[in-house]
Amino acid sequence: MRETTRRKLVIWDVNWSPHAGEFSRLLGEAWEVRAGQGDIEWLRRELKEAAALVAVSLPSIALPEARGLGVFLYPGAGLVDAEAGHYPLGCPVVNVYEHETPIAEYVLMMMLAHVTGLRQHTEALRQGCWEGSGRIGGRPHEELAGQTLGLLGYGRIGRAIAARARAFGMRAVAVRRSEGTCVDELDLLGGPGRLRDLLRQANFLVIAAPLNRETEGLIGEAELALLPAGAFLINVSRAEIVKERALYEALISGRLGGAALDVWYQYPQPGERGFGSKLPFHELPSVQCTPHYSAWTQGLIRRRIAGMCENLARWSRGEDLERVVLTGQWRP
Amino acid sequence: MRETTRRKLVIWDVNWSPHAGEFSRLLGEAWEVRAGQGDIEWLRRELKEAAALVAVSLPSIALPEARGLGVFLYPGAGLVDAEAGHYPLGCPVVNVYEHETPIAEYVLMMMLAHVTGLRQHTEALRQGCWEGSGRIGGRPHEELAGQTLGLLGYGRIGRAIAARARAFGMRAVAVRRSEGTCVDELDLLGGPGRLRDLLRQANFLVIAAPLNRETEGLIGEAELALLPAGAFLINVSRAEIVKERALYEALISGRLGGAALDVWYQYPQPGERGFGSKLPFHELPSVQCTPHYSAWTQGLIRRRIAGMCENLARWSRGEDLERVVLTGQWRP
Repeated sequence: MRETTRRKLVIWDVNWSPHAGEFSRLLGEAWEVRAGQGDIEWLRRELKEAAALVAVSLPSIALPEARGLGVFLYPGAGLVDAEAGHYPLGCPVVNVYEHETPIAEYVLMMMLAHVTGLRQHTEALRQGCWEGSGRIGGRPHEELAGQTLGLLGYGRIGRAIAARARAFGMRAVAVRRSEGTCVDELDLLGGPGRLRDLLRQANFLVIAAPLNRETEGLIGEAELALLPAGAFLINVSRAEIVKERALYEALISGRLGGAALDVWYQYPQPGERGFGSKLPFHELPSVQCTPHYSAWTQGLIRRRIAGMCENLARWSRGEDLERVVLTGQWRP
Repeated sequence: MRETTRRKLVIWDVNWSPHAGEFSRLLGEAWEVRAGQGDIEWLRRELKEAAALVAVSLPSIALPEARGLGVFLYPGAGLVDAEAGHYPLGCPVVNVYEHETPIAEYVLMMMLAHVTGLRQHTEALRQGCWEGSGRIGGRPHEELAGQTLGLLGYGRIGRAIAARARAFGMRAVAVRRSEGTCVDELDLLGGPGRLRDLLRQANFLVIAAPLNRETEGLIGEAELALLPAGAFLINVSRAEIVKERALYEALISGRLGGAALDVWYQYPQPGERGFGSKLPFHELPSVQCTPHYSAWTQGLIRRRIAGMCENLARWSRGEDLERVVLTGQWRP
């Protein structure tokens, strides 16, 4: 079915504008794709005749020009805060997932690197030191097999982690917003009331819940104290779910055996240097600090572009959009 | 059933003698456990009335005292070279496995650390550099999902690796000594004639075959050249299966994207320092060097002691031994 007029998609995002060519290839001749970033006057001009927009949010100054938008494509999976006023009224906002695969890969890697003492052993051997070698009577390390994984949050990411952890012979327990029927890949799935049960058995605590009023600061000193001695914490969601100073103190006291932190309490601007916290997590040998990169893969980009283009093509054909976060029906 | 006389087990090994108490606990009152290392006169005295021995091999000077042995427990899974003359004639030699779990964990960890650029990113962030961050427009990394794992060797270790790789959405192909029916967790299982097919598609080549006349030097310059550009090699078996200089040159030329080496061309004596090769693999940023430690876990030790004690208890009851490597029937 050939459309008589081309529709315009505007991409306004540092990560997605460079892929305009791929959007164009997948959408075909029915869509004109325009991409930019930084220049708000450019954005205001382009928005006037745009049918769809890829952006994380809009500067409020550009909202009036966005009244004709048919679809707002949020290029990620985070919760969209409707009250922040960064979205044009009346326009449905849709999101896209596909981050569960790389995030689950990251979590398994960090658990494995912890039990094997990867960093210590590779750094030692670069100095010619064979500590830990089974050939010459070294101290043995641990295995994932038989250990318990505790998941705070059990959406797509939690499920992807649990499925892989099962293949390693781990136990897996999860707590999420609402009670639910336990699923095959878990030993326990509970609501918020089961958090303390989960913490008492989790050799690995993975933060995989969204940040919201219920989860902000949910893991503090008392919660960390419930974990088994030497437990390992992995945060792939949002830093603010774990209280910054309580986490740091549990790490320097040795109560926690370590942490892998991919999300941070502060971020530098693009191109700038800086640390993710005012506390020196990056100086602790038991902590693996990574630059909010766990989901940021070539596969994620390819799948998200495909997912956004499929949603747009569906809408072009008059079908229902998928993954609608805001319906646009709350126009006052 | 209570035995009237206690039988004696002698343990003569740097790694297993320290666990004499655990052997004793599992074997119970029917067995006296004696452990030592280093003092050959002690060994010769103890062997005279021993019914069973845990050791990797015997010094030939102690072989005459070992004539009364009923079982020689080799505490590992390596092939036992009967012709080397380190085992008493007429005594069955049994081995024990249980290393497949930690070795598979190691292999998955190293594949994950490679695709995510773990070392580069953690070292960079310790300097405040956010290269690779999805939050600030960094360069994306890769995923395991969809990549092809090539296994040279498909015994217990290969199967444990393939099962986990499947949970990550990888393809898995394997070549082993003899042709075989393809199994569920593989896309291809072939004999030695399929090695070139395997190499052409393996993004990850894992050496998991035993060292013997067929495998020594099997992977050289020509074989490495068949791998896809940027492939990653992991050796968890024996270094000599991969030609030392050919591997080094493929790494420095960039033809290979990297390697994880846990087994080495040379080993230091216990307590000494040294490198695993005369070539400076440890100076290459694309190579993760580990001290022959992939299998050396607390879980391995626990399971191997249990496996050896179960075999001994079976023999005490007059039942057949399991995992017999040399039957003792080749006594001349």
